[in-house]
Amino acid sequence: MLTVAVLGLGLIGGSLLRALGAAGVPTIGYDAAPATRTDAAAARCEVAESVAQAAARAEVVVLAVPLPAVPGVLDELATAGYRGILTDVTSVKSPVYALVAARLPGARYVGGHPMAGKETSGFAASDPGLFTGCAWALCLEPAAVESASRLDDWLTVAELLTRLEVRVVPATPHEHDTAVAQVSHLPHLTAAALAAATAPGAGRGEAGGLAATLGAGSYRDATRVAASNPALVAAMCGGNAAALAPALDDLIDRLTEARRRLDAADPIAALTEWLRPGNAARVSWPPTGHTPHQLDATADALLRLGRAGGWVTDVAPDRRGVAAVHPE
Amino acid sequence: MLTVAVLGLGLIGGSLLRALGAAGVPTIGYDAAPATRTDAAAARCEVAESVAQAAARAEVVVLAVPLPAVPGVLDELATAGYRGILTDVTSVKSPVYALVAARLPGARYVGGHPMAGKETSGFAASDPGLFTGCAWALCLEPAAVESASRLDDWLTVAELLTRLEVRVVPATPHEHDTAVAQVSHLPHLTAAALAAATAPGAGRGEAGGLAATLGAGSYRDATRVAASNPALVAAMCGGNAAALAPALDDLIDRLTEARRRLDAADPIAALTEWLRPGNAARVSWPPTGHTPHQLDATADALLRLGRAGGWVTDVAPDRRGVAAVHPE
Repeated sequence: MLTVAVLGLGLIGGSLLRALGAAGVPTIGYDAAPATRTDAAAARCEVAESVAQAAARAEVVVLAVPLPAVPGVLDELATAGYRGILTDVTSVKSPVYALVAARLPGARYVGGHPMAGKETSGFAASDPGLFTGCAWALCLEPAAVESASRLDDWLTVAELLTRLEVRVVPATPHEHDTAVAQVSHLPHLTAAALAAATAPGAGRGEAGGLAATLGAGSYRDATRVAASNPALVAAMCGGNAAALAPALDDLIDRLTEARRRLDAADPIAALTEWLRPGNAARVSWPPTGHTPHQLDATADALLRLGRAGGWVTDVAPDRRGVAAVHPE
Repeated sequence: MLTVAVLGLGLIGGSLLRALGAAGVPTIGYDAAPATRTDAAAARCEVAESVAQAAARAEVVVLAVPLPAVPGVLDELATAGYRGILTDVTSVKSPVYALVAARLPGARYVGGHPMAGKETSGFAASDPGLFTGCAWALCLEPAAVESASRLDDWLTVAELLTRLEVRVVPATPHEHDTAVAQVSHLPHLTAAALAAATAPGAGRGEAGGLAATLGAGSYRDATRVAASNPALVAAMCGGNAAALAPALDDLIDRLTEARRRLDAADPIAALTEWLRPGNAARVSWPPTGHTPHQLDATADALLRLGRAGGWVTDVAPDRRGVAAVHPE
């Protein structure tokens, strides 16, 4: 079986190292912080003393460091002459593809992003069950762009991930970045804008303290993620600016249309129609009905599956097909 | 002690009738639905057979019917010749003040709005503890507008409410409507817009199903209230259009500024600054430090308290002062 090296043993990397180990996959971990390496070794994980040492043992390397640390680790892999499969867990994909192309040209890179997390961080917070049931975006390009060897690498990583009981979601880097702009980055911006409007003196009225006192469940949930560190949220949103900008334009257009309807002769009827699409989308989320089926393991078929909201649950041993789930 | 009639015995009215009864206040309830009256009687509440019968017994009448039913009940109170104090629990206030002025001129109306609720509805869902600790907006006008007798009526209702361990929050009708536009109605609009953007085919991309599959905690919380009945949300938002329109303009301005910063030379630094006010507002919400103090029972002092985020906890027996809490 392939050996997987996980570089960076924080919450996500540490959890992944332990989850792969629990699934019987040979692993080796590395973290730049000696104390983290000690913690991982104490948790019975095999730990390397350098990126080069970890990479030398692995057929698959997982970059599990924050985006600002990615270039340095790529340089270390280049120096070490690493030629195996490379994947990652970073929350934007197009910028990482650009970094890999610049720093490790020719790399067998398959961009990944698990939709999992916790309020806590670090190896001490790691949990081998963190990913169970979560969606894990795994990037590939359409057949016209993707080579057969890159599709094969995609299937290798997908096969590994299905052992963790994650939902492997095929997407192009652009599709991924657009989707997370909508479901993750836009909610951070609306949360910040809603919370800022309630700050004393911030509104067009002068009763910001009153608004905060009258805030209840709707306000609490709509603004929850505004409590996140602004620098981290800005890095996430700014790092995905190319995909976030059109998504934010679209959101502003929608709210501007709602504003126009407030001035309608019958604002209640006008707003009711405006509210229906969001209501229909939300009451059917998350989808509960799913149809399992088999799918040819081609880039185009996989991408169609991902666009429709489906995911891969297993990769056939001959790699010609996958078991997939399609929302009803 | 004053007798309180509660008209409308759904979740809020039924809970209020029972909470007042548990606090030792003489009460009588009425609901247009005979089955609801039977349920209330079975719960040992005293129940009238008509609005007129309930009003004849009461010094304080609480309108606890939905906004569309308010005009009819006001007409019944006018026919019954009711001359006592009138309050309500409706989620907007300026429109109800206008209805009262038109249908029951000269009424001793003190508009109220408890910030409490549940997913369920009806007397069967009522709970005498529903309001414990909740903010209860209670409206008055500045001294230049408010008469001494209306301030006295405000203090009467406030004194009753403090027996329920609610936080009695003074506000003008306009201030109330502006505040709930911000903390309740805007979150409904952003939830609907965010959810609509993830509907298949709705976005500028074609991967709506992908976005729904990648949605996790941020999406779940930011869109939760989009699952509410669109007609009810539209009635709430459209009924408060005068206050909601400028609040929505302000929100769109804030998001447009965020959009501009995505195009900055350093979008991460530009967004970090933009995110700070919302972060500061949210991490200090809800306020945990409170200073109890005494306050003169004047309209202007009470309104200043409310604007600053404070509330009344008790009314002095001589009605010259109140015990108040001020957030630190």
